[in-house]
Amino acid sequence: METLTVALGDRFYPIHVGQALIGRSELLLPFLRRPKAAIVTNSTVAPLYLLRLADALQRAGVDVAEIVLPDGEQFKDWRTLNSIFDVLLERHCERSTTLIALGGGVVGDITGFAAACFQRGMPFIQVPTTLLAQVDSSVGGKTAINHPLGKNMIGAFHQPKLVLADTDTLDTLPERELRAGLAEVIKYGLIRDLPFLEWLEGNLDRLLAREPTALAEAVCRSCRNKSEVVVADERETGERALLNLGHTFGHAIETGVGYGGWLHGEAIAAGTMMAAALSRQLGWIDADDLVRIERLFRRAGLPVYGPMLGVDRYLELMQNDKKVEGGKLRLVLLQQVGRAAVTDAAPLAEICRAIADRCAHA
Amino acid sequence: METLTVALGDRFYPIHVGQALIGRSELLLPFLRRPKAAIVTNSTVAPLYLLRLADALQRAGVDVAEIVLPDGEQFKDWRTLNSIFDVLLERHCERSTTLIALGGGVVGDITGFAAACFQRGMPFIQVPTTLLAQVDSSVGGKTAINHPLGKNMIGAFHQPKLVLADTDTLDTLPERELRAGLAEVIKYGLIRDLPFLEWLEGNLDRLLAREPTALAEAVCRSCRNKSEVVVADERETGERALLNLGHTFGHAIETGVGYGGWLHGEAIAAGTMMAAALSRQLGWIDADDLVRIERLFRRAGLPVYGPMLGVDRYLELMQNDKKVEGGKLRLVLLQQVGRAAVTDAAPLAEICRAIADRCAHA
Repeated sequence: METLTVALGDRFYPIHVGQALIGRSELLLPFLRRPKAAIVTNSTVAPLYLLRLADALQRAGVDVAEIVLPDGEQFKDWRTLNSIFDVLLERHCERSTTLIALGGGVVGDITGFAAACFQRGMPFIQVPTTLLAQVDSSVGGKTAINHPLGKNMIGAFHQPKLVLADTDTLDTLPERELRAGLAEVIKYGLIRDLPFLEWLEGNLDRLLAREPTALAEAVCRSCRNKSEVVVADERETGERALLNLGHTFGHAIETGVGYGGWLHGEAIAAGTMMAAALSRQLGWIDADDLVRIERLFRRAGLPVYGPMLGVDRYLELMQNDKKVEGGKLRLVLLQQVGRAAVTDAAPLAEICRAIADRCAHA
Repeated sequence: METLTVALGDRFYPIHVGQALIGRSELLLPFLRRPKAAIVTNSTVAPLYLLRLADALQRAGVDVAEIVLPDGEQFKDWRTLNSIFDVLLERHCERSTTLIALGGGVVGDITGFAAACFQRGMPFIQVPTTLLAQVDSSVGGKTAINHPLGKNMIGAFHQPKLVLADTDTLDTLPERELRAGLAEVIKYGLIRDLPFLEWLEGNLDRLLAREPTALAEAVCRSCRNKSEVVVADERETGERALLNLGHTFGHAIETGVGYGGWLHGEAIAAGTMMAAALSRQLGWIDADDLVRIERLFRRAGLPVYGPMLGVDRYLELMQNDKKVEGGKLRLVLLQQVGRAAVTDAAPLAEICRAIADRCAHA
């Protein structure tokens, strides 16, 4: 087991990464204010890991409530959030009860937001079970639900007390989700960590073969990047925005296609290619860089073209993104491979061209 | 105009109290990050003050969206909250748009919570138009909506950038709401400000007659008390809990009777009498103190007995209160007139007796 820390002053918290962690209640107990917890998971993860986690806690004397949500991004909404509150109140959970998110990004985001709001804030723990959640969404305290007009529109910053990333859970992850998770892993290399990008280029096949040591290294190096950025800029007033490389395009893809179409990581891969193409058009990176990035995404089995929504529809959806400021699109682009920057200076015509060029001509 | 400040470090903000403030855009403009705002109000307040506020801002070049909610505590729910988000997104409001709450406690609480959650946090301004909101709910950053199983169960701490308490708005306040607001004013005297309590005993008739100078003084002295407590303990880990004198009983009354029955201040008056009766039973205050408190509430036209819900129902509702910790009821009681304390040591039998003794035998 390796342990990183997110050094946010008095909200300092550890990230444990390793194998067979879910059954180790001694890792969780120090972070429960009282011996009472509610585990939130979904109908896919519950049969795999809920018993192991709940049983470990119960044997340690913890009163455990279990909340099983339907599985899918389309349930990351107010209705599902309310169903969590219903159970918390029926089970007389309090501000001192700890909420535990067991699952992927959707479970983590909605559980974290529930913890942020319930009685104006209760402690929570992330136990991410997908690659995407382990390398990105479980770290950093961004929590949210979706609104029909935009992803993650309603949410809060609420840091977990602990992140427990058990890499064994990646064994049961569907192939497509593993590949989607790699999009965010590759992102860290692109925006701020060239040595990591080079490591990924050399070890991608080991990751796709799910070699435990390779997966653990990818998770650790990703979490280290994420935690450094979050510590430097918790509320995303500066550097943290760089983590959104490809996300303004990607969110437009996700919302435009509708739930059940593209996975988040798939949309981010295609969105990152749009951002990279735009960076190339502006002369920030060169043609070889663009090829290099595209090759890595392709090897990971990720889409490198977006769906044909029409450029106008892309722009309309992008206008609803949280990165809009004063009506201006603020985009994350690549200054070079391994270094990103935020800009609102990209001409609209160039943005349109990048979108048009990187849409699949089906 | 008098100005107090809430000195919360970098979230320092002013409270302006005075007459004819709503039309003075120069008081608001310094607190808008961009010239874009959304005013949230309700169908009762809108015809009285919305035009004055919106017009002043528009003449100063601010792009103003207007959101008019139905009036009533029963609308302080996630459905109404969602209707605010719908408009904010349709109108392309951003993280830098300022939300302005124009109305009483319900408008302030739900608008504040919307501001806390929309795109994970946007700035907001409180323009309270009821006595209750001016002396209590607009100051301190507590925001929330209700859940069917309990009041203010879902919420956040989110401080406003500015509170603009225009005492002229109290002219249009229904008599019953003015009286209900006085319950929270009296509370400050009871929990921590004996000189203010004495002033209230001497000036209650002037307040009931709505003398502007008396109202302004009551609002200022209340806000000063509130702001001192909030600065000392923003997140309610200690002293701030004292502001909840009568509230655990009072919330049980409000939820037990159902929306449309008792006003918040009315429930707090009856709830405070229960807390005072319990304090008397425990020997903390004496019989004369109890009479003195009851006399002041009676003079203000407030109920001094709760409804006959049955003691068991009271206890059941009180168990869902946010002040429960480890299954134990934590109550605010009076050590003396002018000084309150939190205790979880009141025997259940005594709590039951206090409730039974202070329920109206209709």
